[in-house]
Amino acid sequence: MNSQETYEQSDLYKIRHTASHILAMAAHEFDPKVKFAIGPPIETGFYYDFEFSKPVTEADLLRLEKSMAKIIAANFPVAHKSLSHQDGLELIKKDDQPYKSELAEGIADDQLGFYTIDWFTDLCKGPHVQSTSEVKAFKLLTVAGAYWRGDEKNQMLTRIYGTAFTNKKELDAHLAQLAEAKRRDHKKLGPQLDLFVFSDLVGAGLPLWTPKGNILREILDDYVWSLRVKKGYQKVEIPHIAKSDLYKKSGHWDKFKDDLMTIETREGHTFVLKPMNCPHHTQIFARKKWSYRELPQRYANTTMVYRDEQTGELAGLSRVRSITQDDAHVFCRADQVKEELLAVWDIVSELYAKVGFSDLSVRLSFRDPNQPDKYLGEARVWQKAESELEQLAKQKGAKYVVAPGEAAFYGPKIDFMAHDSLGRQWQLATIQLDMNLPERFDLNFTTNEGKEEKVIMIHAAIMGSIERFLSVLVEHYAGAFPLWLAPVQAVILPISEKFIDYGQAVAAELEKLGIRFELDDASETLGKRIRNAENQKVPFVLIVGEKEVADKTVTVRSRGTVEQKTVKLTKLTDIINNN
Amino acid sequence: MNSQETYEQSDLYKIRHTASHILAMAAHEFDPKVKFAIGPPIETGFYYDFEFSKPVTEADLLRLEKSMAKIIAANFPVAHKSLSHQDGLELIKKDDQPYKSELAEGIADDQLGFYTIDWFTDLCKGPHVQSTSEVKAFKLLTVAGAYWRGDEKNQMLTRIYGTAFTNKKELDAHLAQLAEAKRRDHKKLGPQLDLFVFSDLVGAGLPLWTPKGNILREILDDYVWSLRVKKGYQKVEIPHIAKSDLYKKSGHWDKFKDDLMTIETREGHTFVLKPMNCPHHTQIFARKKWSYRELPQRYANTTMVYRDEQTGELAGLSRVRSITQDDAHVFCRADQVKEELLAVWDIVSELYAKVGFSDLSVRLSFRDPNQPDKYLGEARVWQKAESELEQLAKQKGAKYVVAPGEAAFYGPKIDFMAHDSLGRQWQLATIQLDMNLPERFDLNFTTNEGKEEKVIMIHAAIMGSIERFLSVLVEHYAGAFPLWLAPVQAVILPISEKFIDYGQAVAAELEKLGIRFELDDASETLGKRIRNAENQKVPFVLIVGEKEVADKTVTVRSRGTVEQKTVKLTKLTDIINNN
Repeated sequence: MNSQETYEQSDLYKIRHTASHILAMAAHEFDPKVKFAIGPPIETGFYYDFEFSKPVTEADLLRLEKSMAKIIAANFPVAHKSLSHQDGLELIKKDDQPYKSELAEGIADDQLGFYTIDWFTDLCKGPHVQSTSEVKAFKLLTVAGAYWRGDEKNQMLTRIYGTAFTNKKELDAHLAQLAEAKRRDHKKLGPQLDLFVFSDLVGAGLPLWTPKGNILREILDDYVWSLRVKKGYQKVEIPHIAKSDLYKKSGHWDKFKDDLMTIETREGHTFVLKPMNCPHHTQIFARKKWSYRELPQRYANTTMVYRDEQTGELAGLSRVRSITQDDAHVFCRADQVKEELLAVWDIVSELYAKVGFSDLSVRLSFRDPNQPDKYLGEARVWQKAESELEQLAKQKGAKYVVAPGEAAFYGPKIDFMAHDSLGRQWQLATIQLDMNLPERFDLNFTTNEGKEEKVIMIHAAIMGSIERFLSVLVEHYAGAFPLWLAPVQAVILPISEKFIDYGQAVAAELEKLGIRFELDDASETLGKRIRNAENQKVPFVLIVGEKEVADKTVTVRSRGTVEQKTVKLTKLTDIINNN
Repeated sequence: MNSQETYEQSDLYKIRHTASHILAMAAHEFDPKVKFAIGPPIETGFYYDFEFSKPVTEADLLRLEKSMAKIIAANFPVAHKSLSHQDGLELIKKDDQPYKSELAEGIADDQLGFYTIDWFTDLCKGPHVQSTSEVKAFKLLTVAGAYWRGDEKNQMLTRIYGTAFTNKKELDAHLAQLAEAKRRDHKKLGPQLDLFVFSDLVGAGLPLWTPKGNILREILDDYVWSLRVKKGYQKVEIPHIAKSDLYKKSGHWDKFKDDLMTIETREGHTFVLKPMNCPHHTQIFARKKWSYRELPQRYANTTMVYRDEQTGELAGLSRVRSITQDDAHVFCRADQVKEELLAVWDIVSELYAKVGFSDLSVRLSFRDPNQPDKYLGEARVWQKAESELEQLAKQKGAKYVVAPGEAAFYGPKIDFMAHDSLGRQWQLATIQLDMNLPERFDLNFTTNEGKEEKVIMIHAAIMGSIERFLSVLVEHYAGAFPLWLAPVQAVILPISEKFIDYGQAVAAELEKLGIRFELDDASETLGKRIRNAENQKVPFVLIVGEKEVADKTVTVRSRGTVEQKTVKLTKLTDIINNN
């Protein structure tokens, strides 16, 4: 699309919109009793929600595609007309389309817009292409359930997803990317690699971390901590609840009351399951009087926060109810802000380089000046903070965009956008500058002139949410983690039971080297056990049999190759370290 | 007391009971309008609850003691009489004693018992000594508030605590122990050593862990983990909430519904803030089918659980609402139970020896066979589990007592009772054997004959609650932690600003040695800074001045001594390691 125009103004948007109407026509051919709900273009294609009188499965998509192809080949014009609200509503009711009627009744305009293709006239704002043959490359993708108007109290409809592009080459590239994303899907790979599990009894959006998944979490968290400790951070720990008073003071209660998970105790107190950690951390800072000489105080804490997400919004690890944040808060003087921000920036750069996310881009998430009520504090304070963040981005020579309206309610943010191996953009790390919570919690220090002054708070999460970070990381590596991250780094496979003893000697050697290993002496064939290790994406398979015992060697098979190399047991460390 | 008799049958109990009546007489002399509530002996002395018509403070205790001494010296006989319920009630009402009337009205017996000393007749079950001079050694201790019948909706009364012993020597020993306990009180030492803090905004019973307190927690937790990893444990991680369904399945919902902290979500789901970790861990185990070859599975997890404790019951770290458990669950075959129990026993022994708790004693907490409804599962299963635990205790040659009624609702326990440096007994570590949750959650493995069989669960917490453990540890060491535990191991004190540079060179040396240190270059006198370090109970103070710079030395002052030793900077490690 033209770089001046938005997606909504682009040809691609029109093509997809028209494709959704063509899908509706095909659906009617498939099931003449079908009721139409809505059919918008979306970021990567389009969908249409239907109430069918008979079941529809993915097996039916081919037939629907064939119908669509005929409509496209017929090159019907796409005609727009505008009717008075009353005339329009009558037109819809005549067709016995209850969802469309409900939609039309909800439109406050005098006029209703319609688009007609051949026999099919649909209530629609547009825009569309001129004629159906402009839909040159499309594909139907999946069938899903969706509640009418997204409300689980309403009728469950059938949603058919599709996509369309301006040409076949782009469509094919997109389909290839979808296939690759499916291969890498963390929701599939997570259980396959035994990293986490969901339980119906525990509940949706509440992942349980298995031993292997927990190793990943700990390695990453320890790595971030190793970067933080060099910058003078200290670890603290906090409970997961607090009295509602804490959130009344912080402002969360006023802004997000309905989103908070609350607990009424037997004595009638109201506790809140924490949605973020900053208010608790202010109370650790507030435990004593501070001199200017003692600042900054930098508190780091990896801990879970909770959000009352809607069940329908939950998705694997990408959107969960229990979110582990590698959170930190710096309490400092105004003259220390810049150095502290730079220190966080260093940590972010180092982590994201280490996991191979290329070219971090930067979003300056500022407040929306037209909605001052959404934020705490004065415009003057905000402008100062925003200008500091922008200067910093300039100094670091970062490519940045300014995003008004994306700030936290207490201050502006620098959000780091990482690009994974699929080219997708993710907001993970964030640095926030906050002059408002110190005001509300009265967080002071004594200056070198003996005066009380407010501290400035910096909020800094490096991975952000460990769940989200891991969902991206699993897909980025397609589960084949680099050696330092792999939960199991080597699997020892004795060719038969006779060689288990020697396998254990190899295990003892790996133990000494600090390698995470498994000894798979299960009574399955060697071939099956090699395939298992490959499915588990283990970096090294170490096979031991008669020859290996005799020569004190192991036969090494590195991940992704079928080549094998036999090395002395004493040289194992070389081959592993050279990986 | 005689080893055959209980405390309630002992002379000591009678002495304390009579002392409480004498206190009531003294209180009446102090305030003739006083109303009497109750005055029982307790484990370490006695108290009496009064409604005074004027304020009473600890300054008045001396005057009350003097009155008591006169009554004792007068050697009044203590006379018992029994009246019909009606006559007794009339006697009380004549004296205008509303609390006593209420008590008498609540007694269902035909007869009411009274004890009389001189002019004072008190409704009382006894027993008492024969005459007041038998109270040979007593002391009033504190004044506190207490609600009538422990209910905060009732009148607040004044409770006066005292103690009495059979002779002055025993009383003095007890008072000395009380003074020592006060000196070591973790509620005072915790904030003084900056280990944790409570915030009114966060709420009572919810400790916030400062950097120093968190170091203690991490060192202890890492140490326990180092013992566990040798026994084949793996770490897992879980969210702090789950659907109520999980607790309905586990049985917690039926047994403890009112004690659970619950959350209603926007969508109308009921979540529970977890009171324990076993139900979550069963769901990690249940993620796949297990072969007999793959057992035991041993899941360890240091995580917070929550209890809706009454505000009045909270006390420092001893009783909190957010409890960090170093919890673990082993899922094993019947033939593995013994070895697994022994492994936990080893870990418990090693930790408690390391922190200097002498002679662990063992309590076998079995079910109360007269209250089968309190427990899950069949008597037969319980008997088997209890007998296994008892055999184990025998095999380990442990001194043990059997405590019926102290079991968990799902299985019997071995509780380890540690004795701290004050001789106090604490229940901290616990091992529980559980055949019931595997039944309820249908947790199976496939035997070598291909049959499905239920696993056995072992619940094992080593510190138990880290909060409780630390409360005991702070008092055990009186805050002077051994070197390996001390949050700050050394403080560097440059004599004046001129020597800060050299102080930083010393700091670099300590950093290399992995010593936790602080450099106190504050502009206070050296004497003041030495006292600060002593108050912080830091193991080593390292003083550096002109001579130390010239000779490349530091002057070392070890905790608890005033002696100083000057050593080469390069030899620092010797003196620290020889500590």
